[in-house]
Amino acid sequence: MTELSRAPLPKDAFIDWLRREGARRYHDHHPVHIRMHEGTLTKEQLQAWVLNRFYYQTRIPVKDAIIVSRSEDAAFSRQWVRRIHDHIGAEDGDGGLALWLRLAEGVGLDRDRVASCVDVLPGVRFACDAYVQLVRERSFVEAVASSLTEFFAPDLMSRRIAAWEKHYPWVSPDMLAYFRSRVPRARRDSEEAIEYVVTHADTYAMQKKCVEALITKTQILWHLLDCVWLAHFAEPRMAPPSFAEDVS
Amino acid sequence: MTELSRAPLPKDAFIDWLRREGARRYHDHHPVHIRMHEGTLTKEQLQAWVLNRFYYQTRIPVKDAIIVSRSEDAAFSRQWVRRIHDHIGAEDGDGGLALWLRLAEGVGLDRDRVASCVDVLPGVRFACDAYVQLVRERSFVEAVASSLTEFFAPDLMSRRIAAWEKHYPWVSPDMLAYFRSRVPRARRDSEEAIEYVVTHADTYAMQKKCVEALITKTQILWHLLDCVWLAHFAEPRMAPPSFAEDVS
Repeated sequence: MTELSRAPLPKDAFIDWLRREGARRYHDHHPVHIRMHEGTLTKEQLQAWVLNRFYYQTRIPVKDAIIVSRSEDAAFSRQWVRRIHDHIGAEDGDGGLALWLRLAEGVGLDRDRVASCVDVLPGVRFACDAYVQLVRERSFVEAVASSLTEFFAPDLMSRRIAAWEKHYPWVSPDMLAYFRSRVPRARRDSEEAIEYVVTHADTYAMQKKCVEALITKTQILWHLLDCVWLAHFAEPRMAPPSFAEDVS
Repeated sequence: MTELSRAPLPKDAFIDWLRREGARRYHDHHPVHIRMHEGTLTKEQLQAWVLNRFYYQTRIPVKDAIIVSRSEDAAFSRQWVRRIHDHIGAEDGDGGLALWLRLAEGVGLDRDRVASCVDVLPGVRFACDAYVQLVRERSFVEAVASSLTEFFAPDLMSRRIAAWEKHYPWVSPDMLAYFRSRVPRARRDSEEAIEYVVTHADTYAMQKKCVEALITKTQILWHLLDCVWLAHFAEPRMAPPSFAEDVS
């Protein structure tokens, strides 16, 4: 039987497949996160992660807006546009991006410098930009499927809050508001997205493409940490030459 | 004086600026290339570089075709389309991509597996895809300027041929045809491209953007080597989880 003629998996088996491939590639297994949660990160390493990850955070409402721009279904758009609000907020100082910048201040970084993204590692930029490209170029259901790393986010966020409170007490607990906000939202978002994906990926070939989109997404998250590792953990530290210097 | 009102640099000073920023960030300074040319790479490390770099090679005619697609000037297009021919060849087995696959065989890799790009590291893919995006999204003159790493290629290729013949004698010299072919072509290509860039970047702001596009390009080349380093040189080796496994 060729793959194209293969019958689609039943709903539960398809969800299992997505969860299995996602779980074993999720970035909670990355050494940067393992060490973060064990409490062995230096302040400089924690800062490097926060400022590089901020670039990823800025890409979330961008990629969600692209998804909404491709939707022809008002009910779907209404649901998905809430994700944009979650990150951009209802007003200045509100929303996930603002909470992340508070976290940046909490770890001792300059808010405006983090917001400018000038110190973001080039490889982090390439990986996060690839996420935006993915939701632009692949089919709509694959774009939605790529968000399903949210399956695993609530658990990671819960462990993170406990680990930070225990190991990095110099970060004020109210700076962890972003992580707290993500627990219920990621749960709600992933339930909505999986419902859409299982309904609309109605061939085996498309189910497989959805798994592949989720895998690409896990590679993006993983690679972000690889870049932070190489520049701030590895011996020798490997940062690209003068990447943040002004060129004028 | 604000930057926007600043007068454009004279032609020679602009070329100096491009050369200076390009030269100090060029990937000949990367530890992977330094070690390659010192002759200390293992066969497995050499193979890893060849197969990952192949993905970059496949992106060159793609980005050149995008540049041609954006040109409204037949004389420019006529010149630039020659670059596409250089890589895709006049017929099967001809051209830069085919020469690179011969090189892959020369270092003991399976030609078809390399051609499939299935073993390419995710971070290498993100970086090379960013090059394609750059020539699509930035202004036309910036897209052309990003090719100017060719300034530095002939020197690197010449040193590479000598180093490989000396240190990796198990690679048959005729497998190095790709490197040899690039010396005169990169020289010709960079002369044409710089002529276009100095003529068309006629404000200081645009000159600066051209320098920035060239810097992004050097970051792409550099990052490719960072990814190879992390997975094949660093201790511990860090490869993403099961990235090349089949998902079916």
